[in-house]
Amino acid sequence: MKDDTITLDHGSGGKIAHQFTEQMLVPLFDNPMLSQLDDGAVFEVGGWRLAFSTDSHVVDPIFFPGGSIGDLAVNGTVNDVSMCGALPLYLSVGLIIEEGFPMDDLKRVTGDMARAAKTAGVTIVTGDTKVVPKGAADKIFINTAGIGLIPEGVNVGGRMARPGDHVLLSGTLADHGVTVLTQREELGFDLEVASDTAPLNRMVQQMLKVCPDVHVLRDPTRGGLGTTLNEIAGQAGVSIRIHEDRIPIRKAVAGLCEMLGFDPLYLANEGKLIAIVPERHSEAVLDAMRKDPAGGRACCIGEVTDESPGKVFMTTAIGGSRIVDMLTGEQLPRIC
Amino acid sequence: MKDDTITLDHGSGGKIAHQFTEQMLVPLFDNPMLSQLDDGAVFEVGGWRLAFSTDSHVVDPIFFPGGSIGDLAVNGTVNDVSMCGALPLYLSVGLIIEEGFPMDDLKRVTGDMARAAKTAGVTIVTGDTKVVPKGAADKIFINTAGIGLIPEGVNVGGRMARPGDHVLLSGTLADHGVTVLTQREELGFDLEVASDTAPLNRMVQQMLKVCPDVHVLRDPTRGGLGTTLNEIAGQAGVSIRIHEDRIPIRKAVAGLCEMLGFDPLYLANEGKLIAIVPERHSEAVLDAMRKDPAGGRACCIGEVTDESPGKVFMTTAIGGSRIVDMLTGEQLPRIC
Repeated sequence: MKDDTITLDHGSGGKIAHQFTEQMLVPLFDNPMLSQLDDGAVFEVGGWRLAFSTDSHVVDPIFFPGGSIGDLAVNGTVNDVSMCGALPLYLSVGLIIEEGFPMDDLKRVTGDMARAAKTAGVTIVTGDTKVVPKGAADKIFINTAGIGLIPEGVNVGGRMARPGDHVLLSGTLADHGVTVLTQREELGFDLEVASDTAPLNRMVQQMLKVCPDVHVLRDPTRGGLGTTLNEIAGQAGVSIRIHEDRIPIRKAVAGLCEMLGFDPLYLANEGKLIAIVPERHSEAVLDAMRKDPAGGRACCIGEVTDESPGKVFMTTAIGGSRIVDMLTGEQLPRIC
Repeated sequence: MKDDTITLDHGSGGKIAHQFTEQMLVPLFDNPMLSQLDDGAVFEVGGWRLAFSTDSHVVDPIFFPGGSIGDLAVNGTVNDVSMCGALPLYLSVGLIIEEGFPMDDLKRVTGDMARAAKTAGVTIVTGDTKVVPKGAADKIFINTAGIGLIPEGVNVGGRMARPGDHVLLSGTLADHGVTVLTQREELGFDLEVASDTAPLNRMVQQMLKVCPDVHVLRDPTRGGLGTTLNEIAGQAGVSIRIHEDRIPIRKAVAGLCEMLGFDPLYLANEGKLIAIVPERHSEAVLDAMRKDPAGGRACCIGEVTDESPGKVFMTTAIGGSRIVDMLTGEQLPRIC
C-alpha cells in the first residue's frame, strides 16, 4: 500500500478504513456526535431525538439475485437509521449517473427504490440527479441519507455493551457478499444464493417493544460480522465471545466460501442485524426477531465478557478458541 | 438525443432535466413533499418544522480559483436548506473516491469542507467513504445532505410568489460558472475571476428577521438565474419580469461570456440567492442582504406580474423585451 494515495482498503470495512476515519476524518470534523462512530448520528431538536445517517452505494454489478443497487440504497439507510434505535421516516436520494446509461436500467433501479421505500414504510422526500460524461463514473452510484425518530427511553450504541450481555444475530451470514461475488466472477453454474437485502426497521420496532433496554444494534454490512463485533468491543471496552457452531450459514454459501477461499465472518450482509441485550431479555428479543420475515433464523451466537477488553474470540466447532481480528483491508471492492 | 439512454441533459439544470424529474422520478416516489419541487423538503416532527436537502457534487476540476469541490459540497447543502427558510444545523457527507487519488488532495478537500462547515456554523455529524477501483469514478464525488430548523412564522416556497412582489438578487451573476469553465478550457491567460461559493445561511437569517414574510428564496446554481426564475414562475403560476440593466455582472465575467458565447443568465452561481418579497418589505430586505459579506451588491432586478403566467421576460438594456426561456439541455457538464 502506498501511503500517499487512496487505496481500495481506505473504503473497505476493515482496519485501514477505520484508522483512516478515526485518524483523519473524525479529528477534522471534530464533534461529539461524529466521534461516537455509530451507524448514524443522534441529535435533539426541541426535545425530540433524531437519528441521521448516510451511505453511498457503488455495488458492481448493479443487478444481482435478490435485489439491485436500488434496493440496497434504500434498505441500507433504513437499516443504519434503525440501528440507532430510531423509526426511519424520510430519505433523500442523490443519483450520479454515467452518460449513456440505459433508460430501462434506470427505470428498474428507481422502481426498486420506490418499492423498497414502500415496503419499509419510509418516504423519499428530496433528491438530486447528476449526469457525468461517459467514463467519468461506472454506470450509477446512489447516495441516500435518512432521518428517523428515536422513541423515548431507547438508548442504543456501541459503547453500551456490558459483560454478561447476549449477542444475538438475526439470521444467516454472508448471503449478500457471496451473491455479488459469484455474479462478478461469472462462475456460470446455477447457484442457489441470493442477496439478503431487506429493511430491518419493523423488526427493530418489535424488539424495542419487548425490550426498550436493548444495548447495541448494528447491521454487519461491509467487513461482515467479524469487523462489526470488533468495532463494538473497541467502543465499549469489552470482550465478545461467539460460538462457531451457533452461527447460521446456508449450505450453498458455506460451500462457495470454502471453494473461493473467503471467510463468511467477513463477508457483507444487507438484511441482518446484531443485537446485544441484557441476558434476562434475550429470549423475548429473539422471539420478536423470529416473528419478522427477515428474522426466522435469529439466534444467540455468543456473549459479552471481560476476558480481554477490545478483543473478539470464537469458540470453534471443534472446541478450540481463536481470535477474530478485524481485517486489515478490502476483501471485495464495490460490494455495496 | 437518444430516448433510451441517459444523456448529460438529464442532469443539467435545464428543461430536459426538469421533465425527467417531474415525469419519471416524482410520480414514482409520489408524495406531497417531493412534488413541491423546492430546493429541499419540509416536514414536521413533534410540532417543529424541519428542512431536509441533498446534493451530489461532481465538479471538474476539483480545485479552482475561489474554492474546491469541498467548499461547494458544504455550501451547496447549507444553501439549499437555507432556501427553505431554515437554519441549517447538521450535515452528512458521503465520499466516493477513485483508487489512486492523492492523499494530499483528499486532505485539502476535506480541510476545505471542515473550514466551510465552521464558517457556516453547521456540524458534520455522520458520513460514509467508498473507494472504487481506478477508472470507475473520476477523482472524487461528494454527496452532502443537510437538516435545518424552520423558525415559526416563516413559510417560503416557489409557489408563494405573488404579482406585485419584488425580485431581489444578492450579487453578481455567473462568477462560478465562468471560473470553472475557464479552468477547464485552460485558456492560459491571467483571468481575474473566482467562484462565488459561499454560505448564505446568515444572510437568510437576517432577511427573515426584518421580513418573516419573504415569499420565495432560491439559489440559482445549475441552470442559473434564467432557469430558476422559470421554475418559480411555473410553480406559482405567475409571470416574472427582470431588467437587464439592473443585473450586476463583473466586467471580466461579462467579457469572458461574450468571448466564449455563453449567456450569463444560464451560468451557475454558488453563493447567490434570489428572494421574492412583498414590495413594501423590499428595501428593508435589501438592506439586510447588503450587510452580509456575500450580499454587498444586492439589488432589485425585477418584479412578479400576471402578464403571462409561467413565463419570464427581460426588458433589455436597449428597452426591448424578450422571453427568458428555460434552456433545453446542458451548457456545461460537471459545473458543481
